Amino acid sequence: MTHVLIKGGTIVTPDTMLEADLLIEGEKIKAIGRDLAAPDGAEVVDARGLMVLPGVIDAHTHIKLDTGIYQTPDDWFTETRAAVYGGVTSVVDFATQYEGQGFEEAFADRMDEAASSVIDYAFHMMVTDLPPGQEERLGELIDLGIQSFKLYTTYRPNYYADDATLLRLMEAAARYGLVALVHCENDALVTAQTEALVKAGQTTWRYHGMARPALAEQEAAARVLFLADVVNAPVVIVHNSSAYTALLVAEAREKGQIAFNETAPQYLILDNTRYEGSEPWRYILQPPLRDPDEAEMLWSLLSAGMIDMLITDHCDYTKEQKLEHNDFTQTPGGLPGMETLLPLTVTYGVLAGQLSWPDVARLLAANPAQIYNLWPRKGALLPGSDADVVLYDPAGERRITAEDLHTIAGYTPYEGMLVKGRVVASLRRGEFLMREGEFVGEKGSGVYLRREPRFWD
Amino acid sequence: MTHVLIKGGTIVTPDTMLEADLLIEGEKIKAIGRDLAAPDGAEVVDARGLMVLPGVIDAHTHIKLDTGIYQTPDDWFTETRAAVYGGVTSVVDFATQYEGQGFEEAFADRMDEAASSVIDYAFHMMVTDLPPGQEERLGELIDLGIQSFKLYTTYRPNYYADDATLLRLMEAAARYGLVALVHCENDALVTAQTEALVKAGQTTWRYHGMARPALAEQEAAARVLFLADVVNAPVVIVHNSSAYTALLVAEAREKGQIAFNETAPQYLILDNTRYEGSEPWRYILQPPLRDPDEAEMLWSLLSAGMIDMLITDHCDYTKEQKLEHNDFTQTPGGLPGMETLLPLTVTYGVLAGQLSWPDVARLLAANPAQIYNLWPRKGALLPGSDADVVLYDPAGERRITAEDLHTIAGYTPYEGMLVKGRVVASLRRGEFLMREGEFVGEKGSGVYLRREPRFWD
Amino acid sequence: MTHVLIKGGTIVTPDTMLEADLLIEGEKIKAIGRDLAAPDGAEVVDARGLMVLPGVIDAHTHIKLDTGIYQTPDDWFTETRAAVYGGVTSVVDFATQYEGQGFEEAFADRMDEAASSVIDYAFHMMVTDLPPGQEERLGELIDLGIQSFKLYTTYRPNYYADDATLLRLMEAAARYGLVALVHCENDALVTAQTEALVKAGQTTWRYHGMARPALAEQEAAARVLFLADVVNAPVVIVHNSSAYTALLVAEAREKGQIAFNETAPQYLILDNTRYEGSEPWRYILQPPLRDPDEAEMLWSLLSAGMIDMLITDHCDYTKEQKLEHNDFTQTPGGLPGMETLLPLTVTYGVLAGQLSWPDVARLLAANPAQIYNLWPRKGALLPGSDADVVLYDPAGERRITAEDLHTIAGYTPYEGMLVKGRVVASLRRGEFLMREGEFVGEKGSGVYLRREPRFWD
Amino acid sequence: MTHVLIKGGTIVTPDTMLEADLLIEGEKIKAIGRDLAAPDGAEVVDARGLMVLPGVIDAHTHIKLDTGIYQTPDDWFTETRAAVYGGVTSVVDFATQYEGQGFEEAFADRMDEAASSVIDYAFHMMVTDLPPGQEERLGELIDLGIQSFKLYTTYRPNYYADDATLLRLMEAAARYGLVALVHCENDALVTAQTEALVKAGQTTWRYHGMARPALAEQEAAARVLFLADVVNAPVVIVHNSSAYTALLVAEAREKGQIAFNETAPQYLILDNTRYEGSEPWRYILQPPLRDPDEAEMLWSLLSAGMIDMLITDHCDYTKEQKLEHNDFTQTPGGLPGMETLLPLTVTYGVLAGQLSWPDVARLLAANPAQIYNLWPRKGALLPGSDADVVLYDPAGERRITAEDLHTIAGYTPYEGMLVKGRVVASLRRGEFLMREGEFVGEKGSGVYLRREPRFWD
Repeated sequence: MTHVLIKGGTIVTPDTMLEADLLIEGEKIKAIGRDLAAPDGAEVVDARGLMVLPGVIDAHTHIKLDTGIYQTPDDWFTETRAAVYGGVTSVVDFATQYEGQGFEEAFADRMDEAASSVIDYAFHMMVTDLPPGQEERLGELIDLGIQSFKLYTTYRPNYYADDATLLRLMEAAARYGLVALVHCENDALVTAQTEALVKAGQTTWRYHGMARPALAEQEAAARVLFLADVVNAPVVIVHNSSAYTALLVAEAREKGQIAFNETAPQYLILDNTRYEGSEPWRYILQPPLRDPDEAEMLWSLLSAGMIDMLITDHCDYTKEQKLEHNDFTQTPGGLPGMETLLPLTVTYGVLAGQLSWPDVARLLAANPAQIYNLWPRKGALLPGSDADVVLYDPAGERRITAEDLHTIAGYTPYEGMLVKGRVVASLRRGEFLMREGEFVGEKGSGVYLRREPRFWD
Repeated sequence: MTHVLIKGGTIVTPDTMLEADLLIEGEKIKAIGRDLAAPDGAEVVDARGLMVLPGVIDAHTHIKLDTGIYQTPDDWFTETRAAVYGGVTSVVDFATQYEGQGFEEAFADRMDEAASSVIDYAFHMMVTDLPPGQEERLGELIDLGIQSFKLYTTYRPNYYADDATLLRLMEAAARYGLVALVHCENDALVTAQTEALVKAGQTTWRYHGMARPALAEQEAAARVLFLADVVNAPVVIVHNSSAYTALLVAEAREKGQIAFNETAPQYLILDNTRYEGSEPWRYILQPPLRDPDEAEMLWSLLSAGMIDMLITDHCDYTKEQKLEHNDFTQTPGGLPGMETLLPLTVTYGVLAGQLSWPDVARLLAANPAQIYNLWPRKGALLPGSDADVVLYDPAGERRITAEDLHTIAGYTPYEGMLVKGRVVASLRRGEFLMREGEFVGEKGSGVYLRREPRFWD
Repeated sequence: MTHVLIKGGTIVTPDTMLEADLLIEGEKIKAIGRDLAAPDGAEVVDARGLMVLPGVIDAHTHIKLDTGIYQTPDDWFTETRAAVYGGVTSVVDFATQYEGQGFEEAFADRMDEAASSVIDYAFHMMVTDLPPGQEERLGELIDLGIQSFKLYTTYRPNYYADDATLLRLMEAAARYGLVALVHCENDALVTAQTEALVKAGQTTWRYHGMARPALAEQEAAARVLFLADVVNAPVVIVHNSSAYTALLVAEAREKGQIAFNETAPQYLILDNTRYEGSEPWRYILQPPLRDPDEAEMLWSLLSAGMIDMLITDHCDYTKEQKLEHNDFTQTPGGLPGMETLLPLTVTYGVLAGQLSWPDVARLLAANPAQIYNLWPRKGALLPGSDADVVLYDPAGERRITAEDLHTIAGYTPYEGMLVKGRVVASLRRGEFLMREGEFVGEKGSGVYLRREPRFWD
Repeated sequence: MTHVLIKGGTIVTPDTMLEADLLIEGEKIKAIGRDLAAPDGAEVVDARGLMVLPGVIDAHTHIKLDTGIYQTPDDWFTETRAAVYGGVTSVVDFATQYEGQGFEEAFADRMDEAASSVIDYAFHMMVTDLPPGQEERLGELIDLGIQSFKLYTTYRPNYYADDATLLRLMEAAARYGLVALVHCENDALVTAQTEALVKAGQTTWRYHGMARPALAEQEAAARVLFLADVVNAPVVIVHNSSAYTALLVAEAREKGQIAFNETAPQYLILDNTRYEGSEPWRYILQPPLRDPDEAEMLWSLLSAGMIDMLITDHCDYTKEQKLEHNDFTQTPGGLPGMETLLPLTVTYGVLAGQLSWPDVARLLAANPAQIYNLWPRKGALLPGSDADVVLYDPAGERRITAEDLHTIAGYTPYEGMLVKGRVVASLRRGEFLMREGEFVGEKGSGVYLRREPRFWD
C-alpha cells in the first residue's frame, strides 16, 4: 500500500491547531503524530510552514447546469479540475428531477455527467414534481444514497414550491431522515419588483440588485423556518445574502430548531456598489449582491459562529454568455467560485482577523460533512477518514486574474483582488491531484458518495 | 332640545365603574354626575341596578353581503334592527371595490344599501383591484371619509392579494393615515388541504374544520406582521381564531408595532367538537372553529388584555341556504351574531370572571372607536360624545333560541346556550331605538360616520 | 351645600382631554358636563383657556424630616402651603418606626406633626425594626389605615435591611395586601466608593456624584425585583435615577410582576455636570444626579409609558444647612421640590413634546392614587371623587427663583430655569387653597387618608 | 525513551469517537492512528472493548483542607492515590491566603503539602484579604503560575467578600487575565435561615437542607453574574446545586458573557430526600442536596450542553468526624468524590442515555483544561499533549461500597449504588499509576502545573 507522510506542518481541525505529522496509507489517514517515522517507500512531504487542512467540501455547486433556459458550457472534468486548484476535494452538487421524471432517472442522468469528475461527489436532489400523496417517493432517495433535497420559494413555474408543498415535503424530510435545502426569495416580491423595473425600462445590469430585494429573502426565510419548525424538519436556508436572514436561522437554532445557514464569498467580499461600477455584468446572480452594511454584518455573524457553512453556488457561465445582453432579465445568473473559495476565506477571514484557522476547517469541511452526513469519512483529519488534505502556504500574495484560473468562464468576479498565500497541494483519498500548481489528477477518478439518512436528536 | 336623564345606574368606562347619572341633551351626552337634576321636560330613566354602557360598536360585519357567489338575503334595516336588540348602535361594515370599479362607485353603491340603517355606520373599503403604480388612489378613501381598508391573503382570484400587493398597499396605508385590516389564511395551505379533502371525498360539513388549519392563519398572520413592520404600517389582523395568532399580534405591539387583533364570540364560546355533533351545518364559517384548547387560550389572552376588539363577522345567511348542500365547499360561510354579541360577552366574560365590566366597554366600544378613528364621538360616555348608550340588566337568565332573535337567519349558532341578563334599552344619539324589548327606532335614522386619517405616533 | 362650577376649561383625565364644565358640590365632584347650569349661589369660575387637572398627589415626600442626624427645620404647614402653590393637594409622606418603637406610636407621633397640614395626607411606614418571627405585626399597619411601607438596602445601621429582611418583609407585604417601597442602592458599593473618596481626600461637593454610582442602584434594584418576584410581592422601586433601573422595573412588569417605578424632576431635568459647576451644594441628594445620557433615556422611558409615577422626594433643608460644610459626607441630602413639580412636568414634559396632558394626570395623580389605594377618592376627576382640582394656565413663562417660592429652604435646585405657564388655582375637597397666587387655605384643614389593603390580581 | 501503544480501543475526544491506536512516547502522546506499529520495546496494551479517555481533571477539590475550624485528616498522597483509582490524573485544588498572608507564602505552604501528590496539580488561590487599592497584587499570581482565584459570597468573617470586593477583584481579574471562581450563596439568607432553625431547635442533620435554600444560591449567582458583566470579568459560578443557577449562567454565556458553570455528581444523583432517610449525616455539604426536581433539571441542562464542568468539591472528612455531633451546625461540610466521579458520570450519564462519551471527555477534561488554561497540555488526546489517559471498560457492574474505595473517609455518600464498568488503567504523563486495580504509581511523582493568564475574546 502506498504511504504519504506529511511532515512538520500545522494540522488544522475544527477545534485546534496541532504541530504534528500526518500519515496516509492508501486512501485513508492512518495516523496523526509527532515525529512519525516514514514507512518504507513512503513519499515524505515537507510541510514545514504550511497549514494542513481537511480537503474543502463545497456543498452547494452547479456544475454543468441546465436551467431549462440556460446551460453552462462546462463539464465535470473542467470544473473539478479547477476546484482542485482551490483545494476543493468534494462537492455536493445537484441532480434535477425535471417535470414528470422519477428520482432514479434524474440520478442516473446526473451520474453519467459526473463520471468524469476528478473529485468525490454527492448530490442534493432538486425536487420539482412530487404531488400530494406521493411524499413517500422521497424514500427512493435513500436507496440512491441521497440524504438532502432542494426546494425553491421562487422561479415559477418550474421550480416554485408553494407553502403547502414546502410543508408537505419538509414534513416528509423529517420522517425520512433527510434535510431540506430551501432557496428563499419571496416570489411575489421578486416578481413585482422585477415587473416594475421592466415597466420602467430599467433592465440593464446596473438595476439587477433592485429586482430582488433583501426583504424578499428575509421574508421567505422567516416563513420557511416557521413551517419547518411546525413539522420539526431539518432545514438549510441556502446562500444567505442578507445578515438578517442568517440571524433568523441562528436564532431558530438557538431555540432548538434543526436549522442551518450558508453564505458565500461573493456576499462577504463584494457588495452592490459593484452594480454602479463599470462592469456590472460580472455580478449577475440570485440573490444579488447587497449593501456594504450587509456584508459587514455577515462577517460579524460569521466571526461569532452564527453561520454554519461557506459555499460558492458555483455556476460557470462564460463571459460571452454574460455579455450577450445588457439586460439582467436575459443574463444567466451565477458566478464561478470553487477555485477561489479557500484563498478568499483565508485572506479575508483568517488573515484579516475575522476567523481562526479552525473556523476554516469547520466552515469548509467539518460542518458540511456533518450536516450532509459525510462525516467522519469526509471533513475530518482523523485516522480512518478519507485522506482528503490541502496544504496551504499562507506566505506571499498575488492578485486574482481570470488568466490564472482554470475554469472555462474567462472571467472572475474577484478580478484584481489580492489574496494571500496559495494552495500548495491537494490530495483526495491519498492521491495527489495537484501539487505546486500542476494538476496531476486523473479524469474520472472521483467517486460517488452515498449518504445515509440522519435523524437529529 | 330633548333631554334624557339616566339615573342611578352604574356607568361603565374603559377604566372604571361609577355610580352616577347620565344626562343626554339632544344627540349628545351633556353631563355625568351625582344626583343630577332633571331639566324641564326631561325623560327620567330609572337605571338602578342597571349597567350603563357605551353603545356597542361592531367593527367587523357583513350586512347584505354579496360575495359574488353567495348573497345574504337580508337588508340594512333587518340587520340593524336586530343589532339594536343586542345593544349595537354602530357598525363598521364593508364597501367592496369589485374588479374594475372605482372607490367612489363602490362607496356610493354601499351608501344606497345602508340608507335604511337604524344605527350609525362606517365602512372599511375592500380593496381588490389597485395595480402597481396606482397606490395614490387610496387617497380617494380620505375624501370618502374612510380610514380603513381590507385585504385578503386568500380567496383567489377575486380577493387574494399576494405579498407584493400586501406590501405595496400597507406601505401606502402608512403614508395616507389609513389602517389595513388583513384576513390571514395562507392560501396555499388552505387550498392544498381543501383539495386533499375533496379528493378523499370528505366534503360533508363535519370536515369543514380540517380544510382550513390553524397553521394557515398563524403563518399568514406572522407574514403580514413582518411585512407591515417593514413598511411601518398600522394593521389589524382580523378574526383571530387561534390563540397563537393573537399572541403574535400582541407581541408585535409590545415591540412597538402598530398592530391590533380581534376575536369573536364564536371562537371563544364554541369549538370544533361541534363539527362532530348532530348539526355541523350551524358552524360553517372561515376561519372555522378550533380546538377547545384554543378557545381556552384565547380567553387567557383576552383576560390579560392582549386582545383589542371583540367583533362578530356577522353574516346573515339563512338556515335554508346553510342546509342546501351537506358539503362545506358549497355552503356559504359566516354566522349571524350582532344581537348576541353583548349578552355573550357579559355572560361568558364578565359574569364568568374572565373580564371586568370596564373590559367590555373597552373591547366593544372604546378600542374599536379609537382604532377606527371614531373616538371620542363614538365609544365614550363623555360629555360631548354621541349619546349612544346601552342599559344592561345583569339579573336573570334565559336560553338563546332562534325564535327570540330578530335576524332573518332562522337559526343561531348559540341555540340553547344560557345567557345572563339582558339589554333593557338601546339609545343612539339620544334616541331610544329599543326599550324593554320593543323596537322603537325609525328605519333609515342611522347616519354615515365620516372618519379622518390617523397617523400613529 | 356650597357649589363651585368650573366652566369652559379643558378637563384632563388619564385617557383624554375634554372640553367640559366641572361642578363641585361640597367636598365632592358632582358632575362633568357640557354647559352645565350653575346651581343657585354657586361660585362660577371662568376656566376658558385653562387646563383642569386632578390635584397632584406627591407620593414620596419627607416633610419635617428627622434622619437621626439631620432635621429639616420646616413644619407641615409651611411645606403643604408651598405645595398648594404648585397644585399639590395630597401627599404620601412617611412615618418612621424608630428602633424599639411600635407602629402605633410612630404613627401617632407623625399624626401630631401633620395636624397642621393644609392638604390631605397618608403615610408609608418606614419599617426599621421588625425581627424575624414578628412579621405579623405588619398587620397593625392595616388598623392604622396604612397600605405601604418602606425599606432601605443601604444606610447602616439604622435603616439598612439585609436581603433576608427584605425577603421576609416583602413576603409579609404580599400576605397582608401591602406594597413595599424600596430604596435601592447597594450598600457595599456605596460604602466602598465613599471610603475610597474619603481616603483620597475627595469629599468636597463636587465629588458627591461619584460616591454613589448608578451601578449601586441598578444592582440593588435587580436584586430586590428578584426577591420580590420569588415571594410574589408588590413593590415600588423608588426614585429611579438611572434609566437602566427604570427599565428593569418595566421589564419585570411586562413579565407579569407587580412592580412599579418612580422618578423625579431632578433626575430628568438636571444632571451631574452640575457638580462641576459653581454651586454643587445645590445638588446634594441620594441617589445623586447622573450622566446627561441617563436623563435623556429616562425621558424616553417616560414618554414610552414605562415609568409609573413622578414624585419629588421633597426635603426642605435650608441653604444654610447645605452650605455649612463643603463636604458631601457632612451635607444633608435632599432637595425641595413640591412647589415646582407640576410646572416642571408641564414645561419639560408636555410643552416640550415628551408627554401629553393625559400623561400628567396619570403620572401625578391617577397612578399614585391607584398604586397606594387612594383611588377613586383621590386622583380622579369623576363624579363622587374628592374635588381636588388644579387650574393650570399654559400661557406665559417665568424663571424660577427662590424668592418667588414658598418653602423655607431659601434656595431651589432649579434657580433660573424657565417654566411655562402657572398654577392659577388649587382646590382640595372643593375648597380653594390658592387662587391667583394668593394662599387662601386654612392651617390644619388637611385630613388623614386611611387606606385599605390591596390584593393585586 | 519508553513507549506505550494502546491498541484497538475507542478513543474519545470532545467531538468524536474513533477506533484508533494511541502511541505514547515518554510523557507525551506521540500519535493517534490506525494499526500503528509498536516501536521496539514498546509496551503494547490491548484496549479492545475499552474506551480510551483523556485523564480526568477534577477542577474543584479540597485535599488536606483546613477551614480554620475543621481539618480533613488526609494528605496529598492518600487522596491522589484514591483519585487515580477513579481515573483522575490532575486536580485544580486551592491554596488559601489566610488573613494577613501574602500569596507567595500561601502558595509555598500549599506546594509543600502537595509535594507527595501522585498526580499533577494546579491551584486556584482563595483570596481572602486584599484591601482596596491593592488589587495589583493579583499580578503576583501570574508569577506563581496561577490563573484563577476564588471568592465567597458567604462565610463571614473569614471568607466573605461583599459586593464591592467582588466587583473590585473581578475587575482586576479581567485586567490580569485571571478567572474568578465564586461560591454563590446569599449570606443574609443563609444566616437568617440558619438562625431560624437554631432558634427553633432544629439543628439535627435532617434539617441541613433547609438552612441553605436554593434561593440563596440563585440570588447570589444572579448578582455575581451582573457584577461580572459590568466589569467584563470571566467568572465560574461553582458547584451549581440548583438548575436555575446553572440556567442563569448558560443564559449569560449565550448573551456573550464569559461565564461558566459546574455541577457535581452529588447534585445530579442524590437529592434532599436523603435528609429524611436513616443516614442524613452522609450528606452534610454546602450547598446542600436539593429537591429531586432540581436534579432532574440539572440532567436536562447537562444533556443540552448548558453545563460546562463536572467536579467533585472533594473533602475527605472521616465518618468519625461526621458522626461526632448530630447537628448540622457542628458537622464539617463536604464529601469525598474523586474516586467515584468518572464511574458515576459514565453510569448515570452515558449509559443512562443522558450524555455521550464525547460529553464525558468534554465535561471532565477538555472544558476544565480550557477554562483553567491547561489546554492542550492537559485534557486532550492529541499528539504533543501530556499522555494522561484512562482506560475504561464499560462492561460489568458493581455496587459502590466504602470498603472498596481508597479514601480515608471510611464512608461514601453513594454507598450501595450501582455503577457500570470500571477504570481499568490510569496513566499520567505516560506512566501507569494504576492498572487492573493495582496502584503502581510513585508517591510525589505529580508535578505542579504552571498556568499563564488568559484573555478571552
